Amino acid sequence: MRVATFSIAGERRVGLVDLDRQTVAPFDFTVEAARSGILAVIDRGAAPLPRTLSPLPLSAVEIEAPIPRPRRNIFCVGKNYHEHAHEFARSGFDSSAAAGAVPKNPIIFSKLPDSVVPNHAKVLIDAKVSSSIDYEAELAVIIGREGRGISKENALDHVWGYTIVNDVTARDLQGKYSQWLIGKSQDTFCPMGPWAVSKDEFDLANAGIRCFVNGDLRQNSKVSLLIFDIPTIIATLSEGITLRPGDIIATGTPSGVGIGFDPPKYLKSGDVVRVEIDGIGTLENRFAEFA
Amino acid sequence: MRVATFSIAGERRVGLVDLDRQTVAPFDFTVEAARSGILAVIDRGAAPLPRTLSPLPLSAVEIEAPIPRPRRNIFCVGKNYHEHAHEFARSGFDSSAAAGAVPKNPIIFSKLPDSVVPNHAKVLIDAKVSSSIDYEAELAVIIGREGRGISKENALDHVWGYTIVNDVTARDLQGKYSQWLIGKSQDTFCPMGPWAVSKDEFDLANAGIRCFVNGDLRQNSKVSLLIFDIPTIIATLSEGITLRPGDIIATGTPSGVGIGFDPPKYLKSGDVVRVEIDGIGTLENRFAEFA
Repeated sequence: MRVATFSIAGERRVGLVDLDRQTVAPFDFTVEAARSGILAVIDRGAAPLPRTLSPLPLSAVEIEAPIPRPRRNIFCVGKNYHEHAHEFARSGFDSSAAAGAVPKNPIIFSKLPDSVVPNHAKVLIDAKVSSSIDYEAELAVIIGREGRGISKENALDHVWGYTIVNDVTARDLQGKYSQWLIGKSQDTFCPMGPWAVSKDEFDLANAGIRCFVNGDLRQNSKVSLLIFDIPTIIATLSEGITLRPGDIIATGTPSGVGIGFDPPKYLKSGDVVRVEIDGIGTLENRFAEFA
Repeated sequence: MRVATFSIAGERRVGLVDLDRQTVAPFDFTVEAARSGILAVIDRGAAPLPRTLSPLPLSAVEIEAPIPRPRRNIFCVGKNYHEHAHEFARSGFDSSAAAGAVPKNPIIFSKLPDSVVPNHAKVLIDAKVSSSIDYEAELAVIIGREGRGISKENALDHVWGYTIVNDVTARDLQGKYSQWLIGKSQDTFCPMGPWAVSKDEFDLANAGIRCFVNGDLRQNSKVSLLIFDIPTIIATLSEGITLRPGDIIATGTPSGVGIGFDPPKYLKSGDVVRVEIDGIGTLENRFAEFA
């Protein structure tokens, strides 16, 4: 299923998206339950979902991030595509470069849950804070079942589904502070959406991932080309940390980010970044000056 | 004021601690409000607090972490006392050592909110995951007022108060994964408490901080000796990130951690780590094998 969080008449709802009909049919959740977005669906676990109400035209609703406010920081994997690992190591902003361009183990950091914004929301550029803001198209995994010490073999059983994240990054801050939290967690730096798809509907082996800046194709790869695949990431994280339903793991970005160019192509006010992943959809955000 | 989160007869409450009388007087909060622990007090902002009910003997209640489940990851500052910065850089586990032992800018990473455990709770050692678990006594700042772009001059206006954190760390994982999230966020790795004190009652200029392992004094310093002081940390974090009431910032640890010794003194099952900060109290936790 393809599940969206949206608002209509000022009220948040969660519903099933029908792309052919361009509609979304809200689940009959209470207002309280729908407040957490698609967590209302995920938290059901194996229990049946409520019935859906009459479909609404997608054009009549406002799409929100699938999980508008994650319950804890979003896990993110760094340097997880070969070509990107090299372009980042060359950039001069990589505080982990001493260990080699391609990491021997997954590099996992986090983004604040309050940095999440939906499809079509503005991402803010504050010139006083950073002059090197960059895009990173990423497949994000959404955990559906709690677990600790999860084996690679069982890892996908703990996945609920997938969405898209643009792991927006202030490169100067990423370098300046050595640990990446600050450069990755600036307000509005986590566009997510447009919606989420359950794992049974997603073709992990074949889906392409692309990123366009003002229509110019910058990143173009396949989500199967991760250095550390999703089972490895889940096994690594959960070795001594209990993963929980609703946890989000952004799996890393392919080559073609702004710092990969010489000179670098940083984002400026007015730029539109569009991330596409086959089988999920399109996440598009305009960058705008912080006022 | 000195505010504790505790439970009695299976119900969570929040109350004022009186050390002379060894009592805690619960605020007349609803069960729902008290569920968030002292966030119920902090979220009031300048609004008056509810009355307190009859004091209970501290011995009759079970102390919980002041904020049992923070709303997002705990911010932590790395290498923020001079002697500790040197001992860690020498240890071989410091993925940031290439930039020099003493950082030029605050190093800020995070711990998962679900790693928080209260005073006297067990901290789990899983020998399958790590063989180099270490203690780090730290003063933790609790934010009381939202802000972005907070100046150093105004920073302390945004502080609600203080508590103690033991920033338990798996040194091998901290080195292995380059970014510190995993090594810092293992289940149970964030003892916090025993309670929190509002800033008006805490002597930031003079308070001593000490850590004992099985009664042996290992860390002994003053919280005024931070490399980056609290106003600098708050100004750095909030430059482009909105800080929120209830945010917790662990400010770094003095020298004397286990990896500072040759050979290193890692924690083993049965060890008791006690952290003391003058004017706050004592946070004591036993380490036990994960079963």
